[in-house]
Amino acid sequence: MTSLSERALINLIRGTTVAAAPDLIKGIGDDCAVFGTAATGQWLITTDTLVDLVHFDRAWHSPELLGRKCIAVNFSDIAAMGGRPRFVMLALCLPPDLEEVWLQGWLSGVTALLAEYGCIIIGGDTVRGRELVITVTVLGEAPPEQIMYRAGAAAGDSIYVSGPLGSAAAGLALFQKAKLEGTDPVQWSQWQDLLNAHLNPLPAVKLGQFLGSSGCVSSMQDISDGLATDLAHICLASGTGSVIYEQQLPSLSVIDSAALFLQKEKLDLVLKGGEDYQLLFTVHPGREAELEARLLTELNHRIYHVGTITTGHGVILEKSDSSRCDITFQGYEH
Amino acid sequence: MTSLSERALINLIRGTTVAAAPDLIKGIGDDCAVFGTAATGQWLITTDTLVDLVHFDRAWHSPELLGRKCIAVNFSDIAAMGGRPRFVMLALCLPPDLEEVWLQGWLSGVTALLAEYGCIIIGGDTVRGRELVITVTVLGEAPPEQIMYRAGAAAGDSIYVSGPLGSAAAGLALFQKAKLEGTDPVQWSQWQDLLNAHLNPLPAVKLGQFLGSSGCVSSMQDISDGLATDLAHICLASGTGSVIYEQQLPSLSVIDSAALFLQKEKLDLVLKGGEDYQLLFTVHPGREAELEARLLTELNHRIYHVGTITTGHGVILEKSDSSRCDITFQGYEH
Repeated sequence: MTSLSERALINLIRGTTVAAAPDLIKGIGDDCAVFGTAATGQWLITTDTLVDLVHFDRAWHSPELLGRKCIAVNFSDIAAMGGRPRFVMLALCLPPDLEEVWLQGWLSGVTALLAEYGCIIIGGDTVRGRELVITVTVLGEAPPEQIMYRAGAAAGDSIYVSGPLGSAAAGLALFQKAKLEGTDPVQWSQWQDLLNAHLNPLPAVKLGQFLGSSGCVSSMQDISDGLATDLAHICLASGTGSVIYEQQLPSLSVIDSAALFLQKEKLDLVLKGGEDYQLLFTVHPGREAELEARLLTELNHRIYHVGTITTGHGVILEKSDSSRCDITFQGYEH
Repeated sequence: MTSLSERALINLIRGTTVAAAPDLIKGIGDDCAVFGTAATGQWLITTDTLVDLVHFDRAWHSPELLGRKCIAVNFSDIAAMGGRPRFVMLALCLPPDLEEVWLQGWLSGVTALLAEYGCIIIGGDTVRGRELVITVTVLGEAPPEQIMYRAGAAAGDSIYVSGPLGSAAAGLALFQKAKLEGTDPVQWSQWQDLLNAHLNPLPAVKLGQFLGSSGCVSSMQDISDGLATDLAHICLASGTGSVIYEQQLPSLSVIDSAALFLQKEKLDLVLKGGEDYQLLFTVHPGREAELEARLLTELNHRIYHVGTITTGHGVILEKSDSSRCDITFQGYEH
């Protein structure tokens, strides 16, 4: 669509949406919408559409792993609100040449991930079209006090991410290069973790629930479009700014050689590459050590302190040489 | 997709779905899924995907009316369960050449219909693709005792439809003929009601809620694939058979001349044409007169008694000459 970005379109839709309802807790503008009442229980809902050759490439994505990923990216949105995924709707637009065996493989990936989380397919729609378009909608639930929003960060909060960044973007770039050059990426065993990060992202469902119920976290979302964009969402929603420190950004060590091989800046992969599906969250000042210790003890999970929420607005990167630059919304746009 | 019908695919998905949950009241196999608990309130959810040139044609469908229709077809599913639509998720796959002005028109149609029912867009996703694919998900609510399912019909129940059948199928056929022949259908003023039935279906939301709460209705669904198929769904779910009578099937009188002009069988349009979005429901024996009278008095709405639920299975048509034939699942498949 010429000259209309996803954000512009969302704003167009948001502009038409002026109505309110007492049981609509959160509409457009977070990882999930939230509805229901505190008395009767609150539900989370999120939807993601994946298009053939836009969001995935069957040349390197097996149907099983793509099935897992279609669910995982939605589970990540539920996780980012502190929720537990429960029910799934599948809307499939299937081209005439799609083979039944591919679809069975895709479904087996879908159902394998659903089974791991005790989730159930409750409905959907299947139609014919010229290209493969997969829309997954997931319903989740959470105790109201455990639901984390983007708009909760305050100046002085510490900014954390739940794991290494840039791996999926590096993995995608490797697959794209391999396809372009006719190489088989199987030979790149040193970069297997990067390839896997793209093929089979793991939604941080357990961690998200832990963080939501910890009492330490003030805001949260998942990193789907890159830290530079997703942190900007938190700042915009919270009315704050932020500083992140290049030296504190976690990444897998193998990303260095991959970035060199790909002739890409590692920092771009880490900050602006999409599809990490790590959690990004802010922690009340003074609660950092407690939270880090509890996560190590109870979940055996290490988190990474990458910056600080400030007054002002946007996302400032402080580089290793202490120079600063504005990277607000410089992430990947699907 | 070669050799895999929508029903076969749904069965494939259903086969993978063995899990149960105490707050999943109804999964796959009705117009909506139903979740929640009686104590905390039950929610309905439904999703429909519409694909450019498969489910609509922008050659004759204005963006405003298509926007209305994308919502209306989902509202019809909520209505068919006796519910009230509340919240909407939009997942849009937009081709690069789609004009912003078209999208604004489409959105204005969407929001106009939503406003009529006090519904709110609460989220969604927008992505790029080669063709226009529109997936709408609607959440509705209903008091648990008012929710109507397909599986409730019993031998001896009377079968009703909420309005004339075949109009939308005739309207679609007229538009298709006009496009093929380069004619402007505006000249066909005598068939305007048929054209409108295709362009701008009206979901029977108020009627559905009335029927759900009437105490007279044993099963219900909407007619989206034609009476022959949709009644077969009720029979399959209820473990019953059915007989419908050609002479009692309601249709607009102008469908006769349109069928002649289109060289189509009127009975095929009425029984097998899709997209009527009337309600199909069964009424407990002895409650027919009461229900008909209340609907006339309270909603000024006439309903049509078209047949009887029987033992056995499937859908039998008794023709005007008293001959009988099996028309089970002979409706339109999208």
